[in-house]
Amino acid sequence: MNSRSHQSSSTSLPPLPRTRIQIGLAGMGTVGGGVVKMLEKNAALIAQRSHADIRIHSVLVRDPLKARAGQISPAQFVKTPQELIENQEINLIIEAMGGHGDPAYSLVKDSLKAGKAVITANKALLAHHGLELARIAEANNVPLYYEASVAGGIPIIKLVREGLGGNRISKILGIMNGTSNYILSTMEQSGAGFAEVLQQAQDLGYAESDPTLDIGGGDAAHKLALLTALCFGCAPDCAQITCGGIEHVTPEDIAIAAEFKCRIKLVAQAERLHDGRILQMVVPTLVPYDLPLAHVGGVLNGIYLRGDFVGSSFIEGRGAGAGPTASAILSDILDYAMLRGGAQQDVQQNHTSAHAAPPAFAPIRPVFGVGASRLTTGQTTGGLEWYGRHYIRLRVMDRPGVIADIAPILRDHLVSIESLIQRGQSEDDPVSIIILTHAVKGKNIADAVHKLAQIPAILQSPMVMPILDADDEG
Amino acid sequence: MNSRSHQSSSTSLPPLPRTRIQIGLAGMGTVGGGVVKMLEKNAALIAQRSHADIRIHSVLVRDPLKARAGQISPAQFVKTPQELIENQEINLIIEAMGGHGDPAYSLVKDSLKAGKAVITANKALLAHHGLELARIAEANNVPLYYEASVAGGIPIIKLVREGLGGNRISKILGIMNGTSNYILSTMEQSGAGFAEVLQQAQDLGYAESDPTLDIGGGDAAHKLALLTALCFGCAPDCAQITCGGIEHVTPEDIAIAAEFKCRIKLVAQAERLHDGRILQMVVPTLVPYDLPLAHVGGVLNGIYLRGDFVGSSFIEGRGAGAGPTASAILSDILDYAMLRGGAQQDVQQNHTSAHAAPPAFAPIRPVFGVGASRLTTGQTTGGLEWYGRHYIRLRVMDRPGVIADIAPILRDHLVSIESLIQRGQSEDDPVSIIILTHAVKGKNIADAVHKLAQIPAILQSPMVMPILDADDEG
Repeated sequence: MNSRSHQSSSTSLPPLPRTRIQIGLAGMGTVGGGVVKMLEKNAALIAQRSHADIRIHSVLVRDPLKARAGQISPAQFVKTPQELIENQEINLIIEAMGGHGDPAYSLVKDSLKAGKAVITANKALLAHHGLELARIAEANNVPLYYEASVAGGIPIIKLVREGLGGNRISKILGIMNGTSNYILSTMEQSGAGFAEVLQQAQDLGYAESDPTLDIGGGDAAHKLALLTALCFGCAPDCAQITCGGIEHVTPEDIAIAAEFKCRIKLVAQAERLHDGRILQMVVPTLVPYDLPLAHVGGVLNGIYLRGDFVGSSFIEGRGAGAGPTASAILSDILDYAMLRGGAQQDVQQNHTSAHAAPPAFAPIRPVFGVGASRLTTGQTTGGLEWYGRHYIRLRVMDRPGVIADIAPILRDHLVSIESLIQRGQSEDDPVSIIILTHAVKGKNIADAVHKLAQIPAILQSPMVMPILDADDEG
Repeated sequence: MNSRSHQSSSTSLPPLPRTRIQIGLAGMGTVGGGVVKMLEKNAALIAQRSHADIRIHSVLVRDPLKARAGQISPAQFVKTPQELIENQEINLIIEAMGGHGDPAYSLVKDSLKAGKAVITANKALLAHHGLELARIAEANNVPLYYEASVAGGIPIIKLVREGLGGNRISKILGIMNGTSNYILSTMEQSGAGFAEVLQQAQDLGYAESDPTLDIGGGDAAHKLALLTALCFGCAPDCAQITCGGIEHVTPEDIAIAAEFKCRIKLVAQAERLHDGRILQMVVPTLVPYDLPLAHVGGVLNGIYLRGDFVGSSFIEGRGAGAGPTASAILSDILDYAMLRGGAQQDVQQNHTSAHAAPPAFAPIRPVFGVGASRLTTGQTTGGLEWYGRHYIRLRVMDRPGVIADIAPILRDHLVSIESLIQRGQSEDDPVSIIILTHAVKGKNIADAVHKLAQIPAILQSPMVMPILDADDEG
């Protein structure tokens, strides 16, 4: 076979680069710009590692006249997704536009259908349409990569799917949103309240003008849905994630958590329950100092997981930003270069241009670790199934007998009190009562808190947070 | 082409498993036994992830009669490496014997030459023969995997080579030996001396009867040599690593380090110097509490690295033991299954048995990230080039004027004193003087200490340890 003899003669010391990868880049903001910069700055290293000639073929931008040029020549800018999808020279699409609807959704879907490999940094898109897109990718035998969609500086997708791929994962949890972690860290350091720190973060560019997705837990929930799929073999399902934000965390909560040697973090977690269902939740959580997660400060992300053979692993790194996101996308590009490498060599004697369709014999890992047709659905559940200690803060009028009203309600819901603290004493102003419970199911806490909220002396909605077990990462 | 039409028809929902992988396992101790157990326990998951039928074909043991059987039938045991190498049904060798000489060396080399893929957990072998074996693997177009050789529970090889593969790495450092970390952690907790804790560790099975490689830094140096190769593109070279063990660390050192909010850890580190050379050293090191590395306790491993785009990343997990090592080997097996998958499908209609020779068109990542022929040699250097603060402990007779003898020597070597502490006061017994220096080159410290050792009042060799910069992981 001609291709084989070509191959064996080239293995002694092949000239670099070999395979040609022509990228259609959609979006030239922070993410797209970072990719262009990294491909340029580390070109020699990337060529050695990939054995490929990697080029930005075209860049989709809303307004070519306004686009930052840099290494991109004006002629490379295009205005419609079709110009990327239909260009036969382009074999890899990088979607760096964001948003779970169009144009990102159609671009990714149509690119996969056209037989092009796709890299996306878009967690919202995959959390909402992951199953459908994985099916399309696998049916068309093209890869769909998304390392940059979760914690860019932490190659967690590769870690779970490949590095720990032989393990049965029982639990994954972590800090997956840098903005909310920055706000909580700053609140702790400065003692300032949420609204003030959010305003600072917006002024500094660490929080967006509409911060809802970040502080409300929605962004972390999108990421968790992808990790849950990878770890537990179920279709991404962010609708089933119990999701709470950090907007009701007060300086008092932070101070009292510290008395119990805990920090408050927005923790996203998923675990396999005894009945086989998968619990998913993203809520402010007390994290004991003994756990590495408690020390993930500022805009960093940190993820802990437990596998049956590997035991516990913890990884920390930057979550977002141009550099870490570009790093993750480059990891995907290197994977694609490996996938494409041999096949391209196999045909390159007869064809000089790149081909949109990848080789039929390319071994492609399933998008979510196991084939899309094997992903389970309807197996996920929310935080009511979580079992562990809880923190409850009540705002009450300081009248005699309040605790006598509270205690029976907790008892009736099998909630056992580990500590009860009343801060301040005033006949006129409300005071806080903080209760730390023994381990109990979230459902019992929710039911008890629902009842507590009906006591006239209790003002506002009670604040409830789970407390991670200090042995959890042991 | 017949193989293509076969392929495209099978992509809708392929039956599992597909590719056949027949393993020749060399060694049935902790590592080999762990692999057999993991393949058995997680068989369904592994089949889904690999799309392969993975079987232990034969197991090489010294004495088949003594071998633990379990899932291995007596007929599968073989006594000579040749029985694995020459068996045409075996396509993957897992070397789990250890040691940098024979039989491991010849088994790996001859297996690669015979066109078989090899997975090894053997850091000593690769640290000594890595360049030669990488050349042979690449010349024969077969993969040589070694995820289990460094920190089994941390997929650091895949992380560096793939997950962060587009980054220019400037520094990597970590705790890579669980035994010495266990000893140091226990010394800190109990206040006991090195010899006593070593004995305990041996009694508990955490340290071997000959602990030299673990406590002397040799084992960590082997691992560092592999990470250096991957991070900096130079051939593994453990001869150039400055290597010091923990045997001279005293409870006093640990207590004084704590006063400066540091823990003493056996840190392996490599970094790119301004002149392009690569510094490598493994020595007891003061690690500020602010760094995640300071909190890696017991037998855990932890690795920090910095890349130009990703920034800083830190990962922690179990270093050794049956489970984590098997987890790492499974990651390599999954990689091999992906590599082999498509090609196997391509030929399976004509051949039913497995083939020793992998497909000529398989895209294989270079063993050390870039091709063996491109690895640099002679570019590494040792700890004399390290720049930073240092800890120096001197044992002296408490006579007036000792410090007046010490100070000029330090000054003459441009070593600036940050703190000087004298503990104890006695006319008859030696006392300790501890000096923390400002940042200075290791060479200056070494020269100064050489001079200090000539002062008659200074007893024993001075103890010198570098101090990591608290901002180092920021």
